[in-house]
Amino acid sequence: MFSHRHLLGIEHLSPSDITAILDLADTYVDRTRSPDKHGTALAGLTQINMFFENSTRTQSSFELAGKRLGADVMNMAMQTSSVKKGETLIDTAMTLNAMHPDILVVRHPSSGAVNLLAEKVNCAVLNAGDGRHEHPTQALLDALTIRRRKGRLHRLTVAICGDIAHSRVARSNIILLGKMENRVRIVGPATLIPSGMDRLGVEVEHDMKAGLADADVVMMLRLQKERMSGAFIPSEREYYHRFGLDAAKLKAAKPDAIVMHPGPMNRGVEIDGTLADDINVSVIQEQVEMGVAVRMAAMDLLARNLKEARA
Amino acid sequence: MFSHRHLLGIEHLSPSDITAILDLADTYVDRTRSPDKHGTALAGLTQINMFFENSTRTQSSFELAGKRLGADVMNMAMQTSSVKKGETLIDTAMTLNAMHPDILVVRHPSSGAVNLLAEKVNCAVLNAGDGRHEHPTQALLDALTIRRRKGRLHRLTVAICGDIAHSRVARSNIILLGKMENRVRIVGPATLIPSGMDRLGVEVEHDMKAGLADADVVMMLRLQKERMSGAFIPSEREYYHRFGLDAAKLKAAKPDAIVMHPGPMNRGVEIDGTLADDINVSVIQEQVEMGVAVRMAAMDLLARNLKEARA
Amino acid sequence: MFSHRHLLGIEHLSPSDITAILDLADTYVDRTRSPDKHGTALAGLTQINMFFENSTRTQSSFELAGKRLGADVMNMAMQTSSVKKGETLIDTAMTLNAMHPDILVVRHPSSGAVNLLAEKVNCAVLNAGDGRHEHPTQALLDALTIRRRKGRLHRLTVAICGDIAHSRVARSNIILLGKMENRVRIVGPATLIPSGMDRLGVEVEHDMKAGLADADVVMMLRLQKERMSGAFIPSEREYYHRFGLDAAKLKAAKPDAIVMHPGPMNRGVEIDGTLADDINVSVIQEQVEMGVAVRMAAMDLLARNLKEARA
Repeated sequence: MFSHRHLLGIEHLSPSDITAILDLADTYVDRTRSPDKHGTALAGLTQINMFFENSTRTQSSFELAGKRLGADVMNMAMQTSSVKKGETLIDTAMTLNAMHPDILVVRHPSSGAVNLLAEKVNCAVLNAGDGRHEHPTQALLDALTIRRRKGRLHRLTVAICGDIAHSRVARSNIILLGKMENRVRIVGPATLIPSGMDRLGVEVEHDMKAGLADADVVMMLRLQKERMSGAFIPSEREYYHRFGLDAAKLKAAKPDAIVMHPGPMNRGVEIDGTLADDINVSVIQEQVEMGVAVRMAAMDLLARNLKEARA
Repeated sequence: MFSHRHLLGIEHLSPSDITAILDLADTYVDRTRSPDKHGTALAGLTQINMFFENSTRTQSSFELAGKRLGADVMNMAMQTSSVKKGETLIDTAMTLNAMHPDILVVRHPSSGAVNLLAEKVNCAVLNAGDGRHEHPTQALLDALTIRRRKGRLHRLTVAICGDIAHSRVARSNIILLGKMENRVRIVGPATLIPSGMDRLGVEVEHDMKAGLADADVVMMLRLQKERMSGAFIPSEREYYHRFGLDAAKLKAAKPDAIVMHPGPMNRGVEIDGTLADDINVSVIQEQVEMGVAVRMAAMDLLARNLKEARA
Repeated sequence: MFSHRHLLGIEHLSPSDITAILDLADTYVDRTRSPDKHGTALAGLTQINMFFENSTRTQSSFELAGKRLGADVMNMAMQTSSVKKGETLIDTAMTLNAMHPDILVVRHPSSGAVNLLAEKVNCAVLNAGDGRHEHPTQALLDALTIRRRKGRLHRLTVAICGDIAHSRVARSNIILLGKMENRVRIVGPATLIPSGMDRLGVEVEHDMKAGLADADVVMMLRLQKERMSGAFIPSEREYYHRFGLDAAKLKAAKPDAIVMHPGPMNRGVEIDGTLADDINVSVIQEQVEMGVAVRMAAMDLLARNLKEARA
């Protein structure tokens, strides 16, 4: 039974929590593919999306998920808000809290900011990405995509490739895949892999051929140039040559391996465009679809706990 | 019977398609003037407004139309989105498509971009303006306004005046008015009229008096300085003197001629402010009202076809 | 009986109007604290929020209020709109009006702009702040907070402290508190207090100790540096020393005095952070909560009058 008040990170979830979210999400996939997408699980509740960092993709996914569950959804673009007038994060949180939201979806550039905020409010908080820390719904949607394609979410070999250093997506995925007893391999240039990764129980490779060997799943990451500063910015051409996924490099993986990417893609940088569009191997669009379903499931479960706590 | 999957341009519509939309729009005018504006034609469906160009006016009109029909409506400001992170239009479209929208309203600065996008998605697409190509709902709302004021939409003389070269509004109106068997006259300085207009079956005049002679309808266009580059930018004062509509120039038209403008107006540039506000001749506010009704009608018809195709 | 068509300023309200709004707002406080926040008082109606000045806090409060009452709510960010293309305020208003909104919430940087706009439209208009003129819902939410904490809204001594010159909040509060027969004291540096305040029936003090003497309510204002130009910009440190509220200065007030602030706060400038967070004296978060309730009440009352006028 999923008994959490917030969804702040994969770190706090048990394997059965993860399974509960994915099982419910499966039903929302069916619902969303049906003609009538609109439900009532969040009817009468207020969902506020509070994005301190722009993310059209993730915010849209949460917005659609909430609207389709009948919530009153409000977006707050925090870059243009009181934050600019010098208000602190806690003041902003307390102000919002006083408006009685039931569900708060928060993205923030600082690791830990969402956890801090969750301590101050009375509603359910979902972390939509905080700094380099966690992005739990991304890991859950990746897990759902894998489970549907591979028929299971354990004993798989998953290669996570590219810019690990700047990626909360990688971090949440490593934790989730580890909890579900998969073999995780991190692949990328040494400069983009933080030290101490082996302590997380993952293997580290600096060569795509070795890294992809026998992989069931190849998960490519976006090269986040916008987060890199100073010394190391690789040339895109050289990066693509060594670490960009194309059909030739993919041959090292299992013949039925699937290719994933959290988007938005840099075609010709971390992945070949033709491969990304090949629906026989690429599940990139499916990940987006699963994203809405996983967020519906997570908000539904949190709302049930909220109602119970209030009853 | 209106059997289209998308509304991409007037070009693809038959006279009976046009009539079907306008007839249904007439009922939505009544509905919107009544105390209870809210219907259910789009209940359970998801409408996404995807504007790659700012347009508060058009986006608001589509947003209100969708909300009043019960859709779950989501706006995406594409200027601040993944597009900036280097994502291609097609990737953006595929991402959106994976979220299962039912209706996609798209404005884009490039001619043809909306058609390209429509090929890639499973939902109904409405063109809310693409480059210098088409702006079909604007032409339809103009047609509805004319039909209600003149009692018919054929055998009228319509003068379209001003900046034809930069205007998708002009282009969609010329096609629609031609299909409905009206006489269309294009009036403006040679530098603002593209060559080959005569092939579209319209007359071309470079003088307002000749152009407006016996017109039933005088349609002024916005001088789109923001789209002009380099050589020719007319002085506003001289432009107004020669091509700005005022009471004196309007005398060339029929005594019961109506004056239209798609907005936003440059008062004192293409039109005299007093004339624009004269409710005896100006139907500019009525055009805005008809805009919401026409968009309700178009989305309603497309949703019916979508449901039928899925059944 | 509340019989107004618009809510443009406290100036136009009688004591019984104010009481009617606050009484209804009390019921909305209860409603919003209950599990099902969603009502139907504005069902079928269209609310448009038209903010010519950014204000995440006030706009969010109106948006939540409308959505929780079942309205179709649309936000228009007017800074990025047609206004930039040279459209006048009146044209914008007429355009909006043609889309048949029922409730228009307007914030504008110019004093009087909202009144001007209200004359041109057929719907109910709420002033969400215009220049240095009025901000009626702020004064009403402050009144509700005071009434709930003090058990009454008359014969209280209220000290309004700080940047009076740039504050429509101060102006609306002075009018409201005066109408309800309270004793109002204005406290601040001479440079931040406009001349002629005594004509409004208030006392003026330039020293916090004298100003706060025996106050039941201490209302701090935000130092609005963004509105100050040229000559006088106080050093924050000196300002805090003389006029910033801390526990020591508060001792001049009654032992059970409450502390208010409209937010967003400049901690360490006009108020000490620890004091602001002390729930024994500070009602700052409660003000935010009352804000949603007061806006629900005001829109509900205006909608009733609108429906009656149309019947």
